[in-house]
Amino acid sequence: MRPCIAVAGPGQASAREAELARQVGGLLARRGAVVVCGGLGGVMEACAQGARDADGMVVGLLPGRDRGAGNRHLSVAVATGLGELRNGILVNTCDALIAVGGGWGTLSEVALALRAGKTVALLDGWALPDAPSATAAGHGPIRVATPAEAVEVVLPPA
Amino acid sequence: MRPCIAVAGPGQASAREAELARQVGGLLARRGAVVVCGGLGGVMEACAQGARDADGMVVGLLPGRDRGAGNRHLSVAVATGLGELRNGILVNTCDALIAVGGGWGTLSEVALALRAGKTVALLDGWALPDAPSATAAGHGPIRVATPAEAVEVVLPPA
Amino acid sequence: MRPCIAVAGPGQASAREAELARQVGGLLARRGAVVVCGGLGGVMEACAQGARDADGMVVGLLPGRDRGAGNRHLSVAVATGLGELRNGILVNTCDALIAVGGGWGTLSEVALALRAGKTVALLDGWALPDAPSATAAGHGPIRVATPAEAVEVVLPPA
Amino acid sequence: MRPCIAVAGPGQASAREAELARQVGGLLARRGAVVVCGGLGGVMEACAQGARDADGMVVGLLPGRDRGAGNRHLSVAVATGLGELRNGILVNTCDALIAVGGGWGTLSEVALALRAGKTVALLDGWALPDAPSATAAGHGPIRVATPAEAVEVVLPPA
Repeated sequence: MRPCIAVAGPGQASAREAELARQVGGLLARRGAVVVCGGLGGVMEACAQGARDADGMVVGLLPGRDRGAGNRHLSVAVATGLGELRNGILVNTCDALIAVGGGWGTLSEVALALRAGKTVALLDGWALPDAPSATAAGHGPIRVATPAEAVEVVLPPA
Repeated sequence: MRPCIAVAGPGQASAREAELARQVGGLLARRGAVVVCGGLGGVMEACAQGARDADGMVVGLLPGRDRGAGNRHLSVAVATGLGELRNGILVNTCDALIAVGGGWGTLSEVALALRAGKTVALLDGWALPDAPSATAAGHGPIRVATPAEAVEVVLPPA
Repeated sequence: MRPCIAVAGPGQASAREAELARQVGGLLARRGAVVVCGGLGGVMEACAQGARDADGMVVGLLPGRDRGAGNRHLSVAVATGLGELRNGILVNTCDALIAVGGGWGTLSEVALALRAGKTVALLDGWALPDAPSATAAGHGPIRVATPAEAVEVVLPPA
Repeated sequence: MRPCIAVAGPGQASAREAELARQVGGLLARRGAVVVCGGLGGVMEACAQGARDADGMVVGLLPGRDRGAGNRHLSVAVATGLGELRNGILVNTCDALIAVGGGWGTLSEVALALRAGKTVALLDGWALPDAPSATAAGHGPIRVATPAEAVEVVLPPA
């Protein structure tokens, strides 16, 4: 089974975030991973474009019930109808997650992935402090500086 | 319609977190709010106990399909069967959220509530930095020092 | 823990369906059961009214994100934001289900409850044939003629 | 955007049901449709095999959180973690649904699809009576006799 890596980030991205996301998508596709994202614009669209330009497979998990809302680079659009709860399906289905930039929605995906014990790489994104509850301790996210480093974190060499 | 306030926090709480949560639950109940929580132990149980001791109504949104897993202070237990995605229903149904302490699960609730534009008070919890994406800007959480202050933030005087 | 019985039925009910639902709600409340329903009008509202008139507890699981959409007889409204998928939470959280009348939405609740192995009483509702797949066999719904009979099916005497 | 057709049916299928599902999957793929199914065995596996043998795209929406539980013919497996509520995502994301045989789980998908106003073809499956509530009336499922007829119903010629 091919690895499945989620790429999360804001629906309105800066030029730098979009370029980073595009590179992440391309590197993941060339490593043979399926890319899963939220299916809309910004970072979601840029990572999809990067993966498709590298002949990869990209799944978009849309918040609404209209598949037509997905960006044009998706291989498959799933219209969940769950609103922001679709972030949780993104997390359930991925092996690991890369966040590029990010607002509150992206942070919810980072937190849910860490809650589920999955590896999370943060690229140009949230500088999270340690969890405040000692009892809630556990592994944390890994800050990375480049798309290549992000992909190494989530897809370690065999 | 009575206000509905979510109280979020780790399932294994320190004595201090439990005491803060108990006070928050009691204050909310005395102000006439319905308390909604994740239904399990730790902060979830302590806020439920505080609310019930003040004759309040407490709804527990459980992750599994067994209502029996809920703590004994709940007025109503809803067995969602959604796993951690039940955090999203907590956020959908509340008017505002108070987080006491917190690990990754709590952070996901804080992030989803801010994403939805709801007021969030952080008591002894996450010291969140600003969102990294300018385009994702918007309102942030409000750090508070006491249970009374938390309740003032989410239930402003009429 | 008090039993939790779901009452399902169309949002636009005939006078007869509404009267049956009102009686079902009242009988369930007097037997000490928590009533859970979809929170809107028609059968959902009538069963809630019957339960509240008997000082019972009624939980409404709403499809949208607006608690204000719930009918005025609910003790608690949960705004799931899941659309029709909230029918699955109704089924997850109940011990057994009574359907009064019904359209396609009600049938989905009946089917999910039977899929989950829960007892289902049909009052003035779907006359379901046997499942077409022998391999999918299993228990079926129980057709009843009166509210009292419906309640006996889902809450057998101790 | 390519059409997206859901194929529903029991996880333990008779030889006849599996053969019908295989043919349905093949015909859908040759008509250019994306096939979406529940991702497990029986009818779900047979329709996936038929579609993949015709070089089609098949998405499996799994109930659990383990992508490895999907059958080996899926192009993409999404691990929803929603249990039977994943049936509702199947319905949200499809343009129309074909049910082959069926137990209670399949019936829930048929009912949710009709509730959402989508076209439903029943092949060797439920012989549903009319909805009991006049107020809940509306369009019903279409019984078909062959895989080709099922595909004509859900993918009318342009």
